[in-house]
Amino acid sequence: MSSVSESAVLLLSCPDRSGLVSRITHFIFERGGNITDLDEHASDGIFTIRVAWKMDHFSIEAGELSDAFTPLAREFKANWHIHFSSKTPRIAIFVSKYDHCLLDILNRHKAGELACSIEMIISNHPDLNSLAEFYGVSYHIFPITKDNRLQQEERQLKLLKASCVDTVVLARYMQILSPAFVQRFPNQIINIHHSFLPAFAGGNPYKQAYARGVKIIGATSHYVTEQLDEGPIIEQDVIRVSHKDSIKDMVRKGRDLERMVLARALKAHIENRVMTLNKRTVIFV
Amino acid sequence: MSSVSESAVLLLSCPDRSGLVSRITHFIFERGGNITDLDEHASDGIFTIRVAWKMDHFSIEAGELSDAFTPLAREFKANWHIHFSSKTPRIAIFVSKYDHCLLDILNRHKAGELACSIEMIISNHPDLNSLAEFYGVSYHIFPITKDNRLQQEERQLKLLKASCVDTVVLARYMQILSPAFVQRFPNQIINIHHSFLPAFAGGNPYKQAYARGVKIIGATSHYVTEQLDEGPIIEQDVIRVSHKDSIKDMVRKGRDLERMVLARALKAHIENRVMTLNKRTVIFV
Amino acid sequence: MSSVSESAVLLLSCPDRSGLVSRITHFIFERGGNITDLDEHASDGIFTIRVAWKMDHFSIEAGELSDAFTPLAREFKANWHIHFSSKTPRIAIFVSKYDHCLLDILNRHKAGELACSIEMIISNHPDLNSLAEFYGVSYHIFPITKDNRLQQEERQLKLLKASCVDTVVLARYMQILSPAFVQRFPNQIINIHHSFLPAFAGGNPYKQAYARGVKIIGATSHYVTEQLDEGPIIEQDVIRVSHKDSIKDMVRKGRDLERMVLARALKAHIENRVMTLNKRTVIFV
Amino acid sequence: MSSVSESAVLLLSCPDRSGLVSRITHFIFERGGNITDLDEHASDGIFTIRVAWKMDHFSIEAGELSDAFTPLAREFKANWHIHFSSKTPRIAIFVSKYDHCLLDILNRHKAGELACSIEMIISNHPDLNSLAEFYGVSYHIFPITKDNRLQQEERQLKLLKASCVDTVVLARYMQILSPAFVQRFPNQIINIHHSFLPAFAGGNPYKQAYARGVKIIGATSHYVTEQLDEGPIIEQDVIRVSHKDSIKDMVRKGRDLERMVLARALKAHIENRVMTLNKRTVIFV
Repeated sequence: MSSVSESAVLLLSCPDRSGLVSRITHFIFERGGNITDLDEHASDGIFTIRVAWKMDHFSIEAGELSDAFTPLAREFKANWHIHFSSKTPRIAIFVSKYDHCLLDILNRHKAGELACSIEMIISNHPDLNSLAEFYGVSYHIFPITKDNRLQQEERQLKLLKASCVDTVVLARYMQILSPAFVQRFPNQIINIHHSFLPAFAGGNPYKQAYARGVKIIGATSHYVTEQLDEGPIIEQDVIRVSHKDSIKDMVRKGRDLERMVLARALKAHIENRVMTLNKRTVIFV
Repeated sequence: MSSVSESAVLLLSCPDRSGLVSRITHFIFERGGNITDLDEHASDGIFTIRVAWKMDHFSIEAGELSDAFTPLAREFKANWHIHFSSKTPRIAIFVSKYDHCLLDILNRHKAGELACSIEMIISNHPDLNSLAEFYGVSYHIFPITKDNRLQQEERQLKLLKASCVDTVVLARYMQILSPAFVQRFPNQIINIHHSFLPAFAGGNPYKQAYARGVKIIGATSHYVTEQLDEGPIIEQDVIRVSHKDSIKDMVRKGRDLERMVLARALKAHIENRVMTLNKRTVIFV
Repeated sequence: MSSVSESAVLLLSCPDRSGLVSRITHFIFERGGNITDLDEHASDGIFTIRVAWKMDHFSIEAGELSDAFTPLAREFKANWHIHFSSKTPRIAIFVSKYDHCLLDILNRHKAGELACSIEMIISNHPDLNSLAEFYGVSYHIFPITKDNRLQQEERQLKLLKASCVDTVVLARYMQILSPAFVQRFPNQIINIHHSFLPAFAGGNPYKQAYARGVKIIGATSHYVTEQLDEGPIIEQDVIRVSHKDSIKDMVRKGRDLERMVLARALKAHIENRVMTLNKRTVIFV
Repeated sequence: MSSVSESAVLLLSCPDRSGLVSRITHFIFERGGNITDLDEHASDGIFTIRVAWKMDHFSIEAGELSDAFTPLAREFKANWHIHFSSKTPRIAIFVSKYDHCLLDILNRHKAGELACSIEMIISNHPDLNSLAEFYGVSYHIFPITKDNRLQQEERQLKLLKASCVDTVVLARYMQILSPAFVQRFPNQIINIHHSFLPAFAGGNPYKQAYARGVKIIGATSHYVTEQLDEGPIIEQDVIRVSHKDSIKDMVRKGRDLERMVLARALKAHIENRVMTLNKRTVIFV
């Protein structure tokens, strides 16, 4: 984790066949990579793998690696990506007025739990500016109205592009992104929804949960797709409630869930432990 | 729990007002009852209470108690019931072919965890007869077809009535009861549904859960009402799943959830810890 | 919770006998109190109760209440205390260099989750000063050496007294308090220990846990007594670990546990839900 | 899981070095094995791996495989074992009078959750004979006194040997096995201890837990070594308790923990997911 040597991670899925692990690991071995962690699973004809290796004695440059691997991947008809520890994700955090998820991410980042760079915070409100300042992250305000949403998104996209942001975290951002925005970041926008999806999608999930009388409430972190609250689920967790808990108490208990679940999802994403497959995710632990 | 002295439990809800606890506990005290457990809560203008007391030195008979309490209850505009430890619930367990929930209940009962009498097991299949025999419970087979359902229910109801059954447990009974049957046992039919309701109501919940890619699966025990899977929830619990879990693995993991959740719901019901209020339940722990 | 009307809480334990609840609730009722929450339990000859009531129409002043209740309490041979919502706890937080527990408490307090006033932060290091400043709490540095410990404690005690602090929170304070200090705050110093006590008491619990190969690690919040890590336990929680977790990973996972467990313990303490009984605690939920 | 084709599992640990995964998977691939699941991890200079593959098109016989792999393993200085699905573990269950763990194992076995053969049940009491009979397993009674313990163990060992038993499960067997017995089954005797080890080792753990006032109780399944309750931990789990729970309630809640934890440990053992390493276990999930 704190190793200074460069490392790489391959995420790959393809139709299952004989020899896949052997050939992939041989490819890494013959170029001098030392595999530190490998998790592979095949079922229902689908092969999925995550391999991490140290590149200290690697014989080719990081830049050439993808080219070198392409023929193999093509032969396997694979979906794949190689990530390098030297190129950490660049993230932007979108917030509205709630501070709990934002604070959680900022402090975990400061503690060294999240190997990414937080490029900026974007909000439709000025409220969390001082928090951003305390952690030394730039804070950009884009007030959203019914009429200016698409223009503001255009400006946001320019800003994200200028900073080479590759991952967007919606840390209780109370706006719905347009399809055009979502399409720019496929499986790279992470949202936290304050319910145990698919239960209580949409607005006011705690109120819905209270009305239904559930004994357990949850939170769900998922990739954002064009269908609201229907993207691939990355992480979920739950907590018990009782008849003594008002909606307000659920909101309070839910805050802890939301920030924990979002932080775990973000950490998994950053460490390249998430693969998307048929609207579901594979999480390599 | 193992006390041989008789005890009573009052469950009561009513509009909140001053003096309710004082007057209720005074009523018990002046008749010689020693309160062992009391849980009261008032919010949103609703008062709910569960009081348990020992009747060793009680000055009036159990039979007269309800009459004596009626004037107070009327004044409070209360929904209420008094239960006596001497009159344990008489239950019937409905099953189809799965044995895990049935076995769990039978063995807990044998271990003294469930203070009820198991009057009979009713099934649409002969498969679990030997299990019933092993535990010494009578087993009645009512094959169900599209055409004979209502007649068979009539016969079942006669049998239940003849044995003074007051609580019906659907321990993975794969038939839907008719409204007429349900109405005969208001808040006294306990079902186990193999999902975290309201997510994945209806058939094949594990298949639905697999398709949606949830990271946690659940089970829900609830009272049966005329709306399928929409009755007041008594208990829920969950377990983690991963991409390595097939639907079959979910079914296996779910079995443990189902029997634990159903057993806890049944235990709470039997110990008069469940109060139904506006389609939700209050569980006194 | 957000009610502006004054409320009171009675915590009481005494030898069990008939009529206790009735007489206590009658005492409150005849003075105009409206009970909102009552939890009572009697077993093994010990009676424990927590009653909360609104004082809007109370006929006597808060100040006179304890005097008025004394005769009853004496008759019951009770340990008891009455707390008023108008007199919120005044707490001091002791820290060293770790910020996660401190930040958690400060932000929960800001969010309105903790009904107390945070009077000051005391530390043996300057590191967390800017965090204190951000939340507007005074920060006092008392460097501790082997030789000056008792003198520094004397100075700390003066400061605590000057601000009428009644509750001390050790939020990963890496010093052991002297018996003299501890005796000044009986059952009012709350510590967080980073293990599932009584397993792994003393130093380096994560290292101990790693060496033993446990599959679950925990954190424990307890009142501080003169015996290190042996005070009455208020709250505990756990999280799974695997062979892929290094000690460093345990420390990271443990941070979330520590702050959650400490926050829950502190909240229970502040809301007068904790009663100490024979070296154990009763927690009224 | 229900595949009828033969499969194999290799468990291996050795000092870490470059090329291990590649060479191991190449060994399997070039003999026609199709890898279905592989989990590898290297840290602190130790390499651990579990590989499972289908043997449908395997070019050599199962019997020759170990010989063929030996040169590689020797070069790696590895601890290793290859298991074949055709050779399922043969287990003996030791019990005293408690039935919950035994019943749980027998019924899971019947449901197809445990891919082993249950050769016999051994007990020092006749109590659970009818249960064994119901599931069609032979039941052998060896009454144990202070004086006959070693002789009875000798007789038990003969019986185990005659049935080629390789795994012994202590399902709440209330006797301590002699070192001589333990040495005959290194890392093949699985015990369930009714506490969260290392807390509350030895006798009466629930009584100890009650006295200490813990808020959570646990159960631990571990391999038996000559040091009582100190063997490598395979699985643990916990459940919350409150002040309303008597020791008797803890015993009841603990029963569910014990059987779940033991069943999971046994399942992991049977599926060759457990590797022992320096008094700790690696569990491949």
